[in-house]
Amino acid sequence: MKAALLRAPGEVTLDTVPVPLLEPDQVLVRVAAVGVCGSDVHYYQHGRIGPYVVEHPLILGHELSGRITAVGSNVDPARVGQRVAVEPQRPCRVCEQCKAGRYNLCPDIEFFATPPIDGAFCEYVAIQADFAHAIPDSISDEAAALIEPLSVGIWACKRADIGPGSSVLIAGAGPIGVIMAQTARAFGATTVYITDIEDDRRAFALEHGATVALDPRVDLIEGLEVDAFIDASGVAAAVQAGILAVRPGGRAILVGMGNDTVELPVSWIQNREIWLSGVFRYTNTWPLGIKLVESGAVDLDVLVTSTFVLADAEQALNAGRQPGQMKVIVYPGR
Amino acid sequence: MKAALLRAPGEVTLDTVPVPLLEPDQVLVRVAAVGVCGSDVHYYQHGRIGPYVVEHPLILGHELSGRITAVGSNVDPARVGQRVAVEPQRPCRVCEQCKAGRYNLCPDIEFFATPPIDGAFCEYVAIQADFAHAIPDSISDEAAALIEPLSVGIWACKRADIGPGSSVLIAGAGPIGVIMAQTARAFGATTVYITDIEDDRRAFALEHGATVALDPRVDLIEGLEVDAFIDASGVAAAVQAGILAVRPGGRAILVGMGNDTVELPVSWIQNREIWLSGVFRYTNTWPLGIKLVESGAVDLDVLVTSTFVLADAEQALNAGRQPGQMKVIVYPGR
Amino acid sequence: MKAALLRAPGEVTLDTVPVPLLEPDQVLVRVAAVGVCGSDVHYYQHGRIGPYVVEHPLILGHELSGRITAVGSNVDPARVGQRVAVEPQRPCRVCEQCKAGRYNLCPDIEFFATPPIDGAFCEYVAIQADFAHAIPDSISDEAAALIEPLSVGIWACKRADIGPGSSVLIAGAGPIGVIMAQTARAFGATTVYITDIEDDRRAFALEHGATVALDPRVDLIEGLEVDAFIDASGVAAAVQAGILAVRPGGRAILVGMGNDTVELPVSWIQNREIWLSGVFRYTNTWPLGIKLVESGAVDLDVLVTSTFVLADAEQALNAGRQPGQMKVIVYPGR
Amino acid sequence: MKAALLRAPGEVTLDTVPVPLLEPDQVLVRVAAVGVCGSDVHYYQHGRIGPYVVEHPLILGHELSGRITAVGSNVDPARVGQRVAVEPQRPCRVCEQCKAGRYNLCPDIEFFATPPIDGAFCEYVAIQADFAHAIPDSISDEAAALIEPLSVGIWACKRADIGPGSSVLIAGAGPIGVIMAQTARAFGATTVYITDIEDDRRAFALEHGATVALDPRVDLIEGLEVDAFIDASGVAAAVQAGILAVRPGGRAILVGMGNDTVELPVSWIQNREIWLSGVFRYTNTWPLGIKLVESGAVDLDVLVTSTFVLADAEQALNAGRQPGQMKVIVYPGR
Repeated sequence: MKAALLRAPGEVTLDTVPVPLLEPDQVLVRVAAVGVCGSDVHYYQHGRIGPYVVEHPLILGHELSGRITAVGSNVDPARVGQRVAVEPQRPCRVCEQCKAGRYNLCPDIEFFATPPIDGAFCEYVAIQADFAHAIPDSISDEAAALIEPLSVGIWACKRADIGPGSSVLIAGAGPIGVIMAQTARAFGATTVYITDIEDDRRAFALEHGATVALDPRVDLIEGLEVDAFIDASGVAAAVQAGILAVRPGGRAILVGMGNDTVELPVSWIQNREIWLSGVFRYTNTWPLGIKLVESGAVDLDVLVTSTFVLADAEQALNAGRQPGQMKVIVYPGR
Repeated sequence: MKAALLRAPGEVTLDTVPVPLLEPDQVLVRVAAVGVCGSDVHYYQHGRIGPYVVEHPLILGHELSGRITAVGSNVDPARVGQRVAVEPQRPCRVCEQCKAGRYNLCPDIEFFATPPIDGAFCEYVAIQADFAHAIPDSISDEAAALIEPLSVGIWACKRADIGPGSSVLIAGAGPIGVIMAQTARAFGATTVYITDIEDDRRAFALEHGATVALDPRVDLIEGLEVDAFIDASGVAAAVQAGILAVRPGGRAILVGMGNDTVELPVSWIQNREIWLSGVFRYTNTWPLGIKLVESGAVDLDVLVTSTFVLADAEQALNAGRQPGQMKVIVYPGR
Repeated sequence: MKAALLRAPGEVTLDTVPVPLLEPDQVLVRVAAVGVCGSDVHYYQHGRIGPYVVEHPLILGHELSGRITAVGSNVDPARVGQRVAVEPQRPCRVCEQCKAGRYNLCPDIEFFATPPIDGAFCEYVAIQADFAHAIPDSISDEAAALIEPLSVGIWACKRADIGPGSSVLIAGAGPIGVIMAQTARAFGATTVYITDIEDDRRAFALEHGATVALDPRVDLIEGLEVDAFIDASGVAAAVQAGILAVRPGGRAILVGMGNDTVELPVSWIQNREIWLSGVFRYTNTWPLGIKLVESGAVDLDVLVTSTFVLADAEQALNAGRQPGQMKVIVYPGR
Repeated sequence: MKAALLRAPGEVTLDTVPVPLLEPDQVLVRVAAVGVCGSDVHYYQHGRIGPYVVEHPLILGHELSGRITAVGSNVDPARVGQRVAVEPQRPCRVCEQCKAGRYNLCPDIEFFATPPIDGAFCEYVAIQADFAHAIPDSISDEAAALIEPLSVGIWACKRADIGPGSSVLIAGAGPIGVIMAQTARAFGATTVYITDIEDDRRAFALEHGATVALDPRVDLIEGLEVDAFIDASGVAAAVQAGILAVRPGGRAILVGMGNDTVELPVSWIQNREIWLSGVFRYTNTWPLGIKLVESGAVDLDVLVTSTFVLADAEQALNAGRQPGQMKVIVYPGR
C-alpha cells in the first residue's frame, strides 16, 4: 500500500509499504480521511516530541475515519463494509489503570503516529475491533476523522465538570479551542468565553460555540469568575491569567502543550481550593462523540479549511501554518 | 476579662477588655486551652499575612477548647456547662458556597485571629452555637483545642481522596505533618511516607503515623509512586519533588503556605492527569475529628511539648521556634 | 390582604388576613402568579398528605413569582421593585444536612403550603432574601412561578446523573413528566422515552422534549435499556417496569408519589447494581432553573392551560382534573 | 487430575478429569485451599440458581488460593512458584462496562462454578495472569482463598460509601456479615451494628468487627439512624427494617440473595433521598483485600471452622449447615 513516510525532520516521502497483518481481534480499515494535528506538524518539523524520537521512518496521522475491509478471526465478519471512526490507541487492558476505567493512563499504551507506532497517512490501518467505532451515514468522513480532537474536548469538559449552566473560559481559538467551545455548549455551558489574539479566530469561535470572545492583549481576563478554565493555547501567560479567573472551588484543565514547567499562582489555587489538572488523550469518548455529531450539537465539518490527497501529505503538513487555516484533511483513499 | 493583645509586631501585652456580648444564636465559652499555630507566630512577628494586616490591637489564637458559661436567647440553656471544641469561624450561611456545603469558601467568612476578628488568647469567646462542638470527658482540653489542626488534616485527606490501602507522601514532619500522618492512617492509608530534614522530627513521625521517614537531602523522593502527595512544608522544592512522586491519576494537595507562585511541572501533571489543589481551612470536620480522637485513631495529646499561662502568651509565641518543640499550648483559664 | 383559605376538605374561601411581618433577613413579595400543584389539589380534596394534616385554615400554593415590595432590616433596600421567583422553603441552616449542602433534607425545614406553614394563594408572602431569586424581564410571571416544578426536574436529573448522550425513560407525561423531558434534554440527554396512557399527553410531550412516546398498554417498556429511569407517575406498575428498563449500573429515580410501599425487583437491582432513590424537593436549583428558562433550553409558558384570579382559587383547584389540562395558574395580584 | 464433580442435585463424585489447557495469557494454579460458599451449597442442593442450571457435571468452588505451576506463552515465566489468591472471573475486557472500569457488569463475564464454567474443587485451575494475585508469605492459604468473600465486603463498603466515622447497620452475622463488619471497621466506621437471631453468631461478630450486636426479635432496629445499611441476610423483613434505619441521604446496599421481589418502603426512600442498590460480585478488589489481610486490619483465618480433603468435598458441602459453623475449607492439594 502507499504511505507517506516521515524520514527525517522536514522530509516526507510517498512510499510503498506492506499492508498491516491482522491479529485475531483486529479489523483492517481502508482510510478515508485523516486530520492533521499539531503533533503531526511538530514531529514533521522537529523529529521528536519530548521523549518520543522518530528514529525510523514513521507514518504520521492519528485523526482518522474509513471503512472496514477485513476482519480478524475473532471479529464478526458482518462488520466488513462498515464505516468507522478510529480511536487510534491500544491499551494493554490488564493493568490497574485499564481495569479501573482509565485506559488512557495505561503505561503500556500504544498510540498512532507516536514512535515507533505508525499512524494513518496511508491506505490501510489495523485496529482492535472495539476501537473502530461504527458511524451512521449522516456523519461525513471528515467529521468522523475529527471525532479524535472532539474526544479531547469531551474528555476536557468531563474533567472540567462542565454541566448545565456552567461558565467556561477557553484560552486559544484554534481548532481545539473551537471544538472545546462547541463541546462545552453541548454539555450545557451557558457562558463560554474564548480568548485569542487573532481577530478572525475570535470571530470564527463566536459563530461556533463561544458566547464571548476576548483579546487577551486588551480585555481583562483575570476579572472573570468562571466555573472552569480550559487552556487550549499552551501559552504560560494564558494559563496564569486563566487560573486567576476561576471561581472558588472551580477547575482549571490544561490541554495545550507548552513548557514542561510553568510558574503557577499556588496561593490562589490553595485559597480558592481550585482543582488543576490536564488531559492526556481520552477514555471512552467515541460513543458520545458520535452522538454529539449525529445530533448536530457539535459541527466538525465547519472546521475543515483545506484538503489534500495522500501524495500531497507534506503539503498538508505545511498548510496549517498559513493564516485562516483551521483543520487540514488528507484523503489517503483518493 | 484578661486578654493578650498583639499591639505591634513583636509586642504582646496582657490587658483587660470587655467580655464579648452574645448574639441570640451564640454561646459564651470560657477558654480552657489554646494551641499556638504558625499563623499566630507569623502575625506576632510580621504584623500581617498577605492582605490581612493587624491595624488595631488583635487577640491571637484560633485553636481552642473550653466550657460554655452562657447562651444566647435562641440556644438551649441546657448547654451551659458543656465542654466544647470550638470551630473558630463564622460563615454567612446564605451565599452560594455556604448553601452548597463549602462554607470554608464563603467570601464573607469571619475567622478567629484574622484581622479584624479577635481570637482566643483571652478568658472568654463568643461563637455561634453549632460551631461549639460538645466533647466527651475522655478528650482533654489540649486535644480538644487541637481538633482545629486535626481538621486541616481531615480536610486534606478528604481532598486527597485517602482511603483504605492508600499510599501517601507527606512533606514536612512538623505538627501539621504528623497530624496528617495520623489522619491518613485513620482514613485507611497503609503506606505513609514523611519527609523532613530534622532527624528528631522524622523519628517522632515514625512513632506517630508515618510508616517510612525520608530525609529529602539524601533519599530519593521522585522515585516514589504514591496515590497522594500532601505538602505540609510550604517549601517549593518539596512541592516540586512531591508532585513528581504521584502516580497517574493521583492527587497533590498543598497545605503548607509558602511563596505565592511556584514553578510547577505542568507537563507531568498533564501527562499523568494528576489533580492538584490546596486546602483553605475546612468544612464540617469537627464531628469526625471528635470521633477520631475519642476512638484513639488519632492521638493529639502526644503533640504537646510546652504549656504557658495567659500572662506568658508572648513566651508561648516564641517557644515554638526552639528545637524539639511540636505544639505549644496556652491556658487562659489558669 | 386577601387570601384563599382552605378551611376543610373541599372548602376554600376568600378572606382577609394580616400581611406577614418581615424578619430582618426577609423580603415581602407581592405575589404575581402561582401554579397549582398536585399536592395543593390533594390537600384541597383530602385535608392531609400523609402525616401533614390541615388542622387550621391554610393558604395553599407553593409555585410562585412576584415583585419585592419591602425588605427586612438586614436586606439591601435596592432590592425593592425586583421581580423574583420564590423558592418556597426555609431550612434551619445550622444542622448537619444544611451545612453539608443538602438543605432539602433539613429535619426542621419549613415549606409553603405544608401545614402549618401558609402558601401563596394570597397577595403577599414573606421569604428569606436569598430564596427570592431575581429574574430577568425575559421570563414571564407564569414561567417564573413554574421554576418550582422545574426545580424538581433539575434535581431529579442531577440525581439520575443525566448528561450528554444519556438515554432516559420517563413514566408519566403530566406537567412534571413534560418538564422532566425538557430538563433531561437541557442536560444533554439524546434519547428521552416518555410513557403515558393518554394520547394527547404523549403527543404534547413529543413536541416538548421527548424523542419517543410510548403507550405502556401496548408498547414494551421492559425491553428498553436506558441510563436512567425517572418515575413521574406514582404508579406501582410503571415503577416496576421502569426499573426493568435500566441498564447495568444505571439509575432509577422516583419522583411521583404513590403508595408508601411497592413490590420492587430487588434481584434485578442487585444483579445490575442499579442505584434507586427518590427526590425530596430540591437544593440550590433556582439559579440553574432561571438560566435554563432564560436561554430557552426549557419552555415553561407552553405548559399553562388555564388561568384564574384569586377569587376563583377554588375553581383553579378543580380545573386540573379536566381533560387537556396541564398547568393551572392563579393570579393573586389581578 | 482429580476433581469433585456435581453430577446431580445432592450427588458429588470424585473423578479424574483433564488438567485445563492454558491460553497464552493464563497461568495454571495448583489449588491449595477453597472456601465453601452458600452458592456452592445451593447448586449442590438444588442444581440451579435462578437462570443458571447445572446441565452437565460441574466442578464447584470459587473461593481459592494456590501456587502457580505453569504459565502461558505471554506470561512471565518468573511467576512459576508464586503463591496466589485467585479472582475467579473472566470479563471480556472490550465491552462498554469493562472499559468503564465496571467489569463485574460485563454481560459476557465468565465466573467459576457458575454453569457451564468449572470451579476449583479440583487439583488445577487456569486463570488469566492478572487475576492470579500474588500474596505474601504472611497470608495463609485459607485467608488467601477467603479474599473472595472479603472482596464482596470491600465492594459493598465502597458502594455504601463507608468512611472514617461512618455508622453502619449489617443484617446477618454469618460469614459475609462478619467479614462486612471487619471491612467496615477497616474503612473507618466507628459504629457497626450487626443483627442476627443466633446468640453465638452475635457473640462472634462482637469479637470480630461489630461494636453492637442486636437480636431483631427483641431489639428495635428501625429506631437507629445510620449512614449505611448493608443486608447480608437475604431476609425481606431484615431489608425492610434496615432501610427504615438509614439516615436522610444515607445508603442501603443489598448483598444477601433472597426473593426476586421485595415490598420496599418507597415513600421513606423518597422522602429521605436514600440510595438503594446491591452488589454483583466485585471489581478490582483483590489488591486492597491483600493489603487489609496483610496489615491485620481484617482477620480471615478466624472464620475457618472446618476443613476437608478433596475426597470429602461432599461432606464439606454439608458441613456448613451444622450449628456453630462459619467457613468450611477444602484442600484439593492434600
